[in-house]
Amino acid sequence: MNAADAMRSAIAQADGVKGTTYPNPPVGAVILDRAGAIAGVGATQPPGGPHAEVVALRRAGERAVGGVAVVTLEPCNHHGRTPPCVDALVKSGVSRVVYSVSDPNPVAAGGAKRLADAGLSVEVGVLAEDVAGGALRQWLHRQRTGRPHVTWKFASSIDGRSAAADGSSQWITSEAARADVHRLRAVADAIVVGTGTVFGDDPTLTARLPDGSLAERQPLRVVVGEREISPDARVLNDDSRTMVIRTRDPHEVVRALSDRTDVLLEGGPTVAGAFLRAGVVDRILAYVAPILLGGPITVVDDVGVASIVQAQRWRYDGVLRFGPDLRMSLVPG
Amino acid sequence: MNAADAMRSAIAQADGVKGTTYPNPPVGAVILDRAGAIAGVGATQPPGGPHAEVVALRRAGERAVGGVAVVTLEPCNHHGRTPPCVDALVKSGVSRVVYSVSDPNPVAAGGAKRLADAGLSVEVGVLAEDVAGGALRQWLHRQRTGRPHVTWKFASSIDGRSAAADGSSQWITSEAARADVHRLRAVADAIVVGTGTVFGDDPTLTARLPDGSLAERQPLRVVVGEREISPDARVLNDDSRTMVIRTRDPHEVVRALSDRTDVLLEGGPTVAGAFLRAGVVDRILAYVAPILLGGPITVVDDVGVASIVQAQRWRYDGVLRFGPDLRMSLVPG
Repeated sequence: MNAADAMRSAIAQADGVKGTTYPNPPVGAVILDRAGAIAGVGATQPPGGPHAEVVALRRAGERAVGGVAVVTLEPCNHHGRTPPCVDALVKSGVSRVVYSVSDPNPVAAGGAKRLADAGLSVEVGVLAEDVAGGALRQWLHRQRTGRPHVTWKFASSIDGRSAAADGSSQWITSEAARADVHRLRAVADAIVVGTGTVFGDDPTLTARLPDGSLAERQPLRVVVGEREISPDARVLNDDSRTMVIRTRDPHEVVRALSDRTDVLLEGGPTVAGAFLRAGVVDRILAYVAPILLGGPITVVDDVGVASIVQAQRWRYDGVLRFGPDLRMSLVPG
Repeated sequence: MNAADAMRSAIAQADGVKGTTYPNPPVGAVILDRAGAIAGVGATQPPGGPHAEVVALRRAGERAVGGVAVVTLEPCNHHGRTPPCVDALVKSGVSRVVYSVSDPNPVAAGGAKRLADAGLSVEVGVLAEDVAGGALRQWLHRQRTGRPHVTWKFASSIDGRSAAADGSSQWITSEAARADVHRLRAVADAIVVGTGTVFGDDPTLTARLPDGSLAERQPLRVVVGEREISPDARVLNDDSRTMVIRTRDPHEVVRALSDRTDVLLEGGPTVAGAFLRAGVVDRILAYVAPILLGGPITVVDDVGVASIVQAQRWRYDGVLRFGPDLRMSLVPG
């Protein structure tokens, strides 16, 4: 197996633990033996547990000697709650380490240098775009900016409507698209909506499995706005915890969530507009159904643009199909 | 070369003559010799000229003997202004004919049977989806329904706006996307806008080459609506012919264009809504830029949908990238 194929396996490992590793990054690792066969795989365990490299090395055992370690993130070089992964790699007898993305954390970084100093061959950058845009996206953003990563998710018709004229919106997108949203929720740290969404749709804001049951992990539910919501609102039920933030200022919301990494903004046109105007949206995920609705209810109202030269410029960084719908991912352009 | 690769060449031939063959279909043909090498290619010539198969056979000459004819459309079996293509094929000595799409025209059809009766091996359906959705799309639609094929083209932001709040819209999409629109115009038979677009944008509605000069072929410009437009409107200049239809009824417009095949609807929110409500749009081409605009100007206003259950249902039949923009093609779902 070549390094790129092994990295794909490592990415799949990381995807499987996304959302369970905070404050550690969700990392995946694969150990190839001398002959290039997979000797062990692993992913970051919950805080206090071993990192991905250590899990994979344990599984590989003696077969690691003379082999290659393939990891999504630069192996860490510091003592946290566990010893540095670079030590475990050097001790394991692998002769080469391939990783995808460098660690932007100045405390944990320096792993590549340590490995090279110990005589191992080191390669960086394999499938770097996939990894940086995948499970590590939010963690890397947080390391670089000190802020949680905010994804604005919306579902719309091809003409930019989030509901029909009478307010009905169940369902604009297909089951396949909605299942993807539930997967995103299950690995997010918080879901943010405005009071308008609570009054209008009364959602539970939970992550559900395809059979309708609750996912094992539930994100914090966050309601923002100055109106008081009813104590009977579903968002306050026992399915998960809920935080109510009495403000209309997106900066205040982001500050209140500063210890989180992955925030999903599912607000309606008003809240989404406020976050976009404040410049605190880091990614847009648009689920666009092949339908036309027309009418007055658009996905966002005012984004602070008066004239075309002021348009908010983004960039597509991926388009996927979910059933009949498209999911466009956009990042600041 | 195998049949699929040869069909791709035939498709490219057909694309090159789209818009110049009316009332004949834009067809492409490739003749492979005994060894599978290309012996000749051809495309439908302007009315009165030879059809694609005949052009390709002439170029192949003796090399056609024992070879394969690969054609995008079932070879015709009737005397129009030129003799039937099936006769030329039988006479040429090819031993096999591969075509993509059957001829829905009852007068011209029957070509496959004639060929088989003459002892040739006949195969149908190679790359049928590409061919039926490509240069032949509008012609096939016209054969099946007796009506011209209407494509609603729009450019929008990701939030469904066709202009910023102040009405400015130059340019929402990139040069690459606009160049694609000019290619579509150059092969269309008519471009339709409402008087609102003429008053608001004063467009020339011409097909232009990337250097800004006029394309060789210009579609008929059609202005629909009850308001009188100024004699100084650019749409009335000498770059092409212009038809003004004093009606708001899309059915009347389609009837007035009943001798055309490929109609491009570039109307604003009101005209587009009228055509969509009337059910006379056969394809949507949405050029969606990765920008946000917000504000009151949407690509379409009222499509006759009050509640989500009445949503106009379409189906994506292709997504392409043009520079930073996406082009989504949709057909009735």
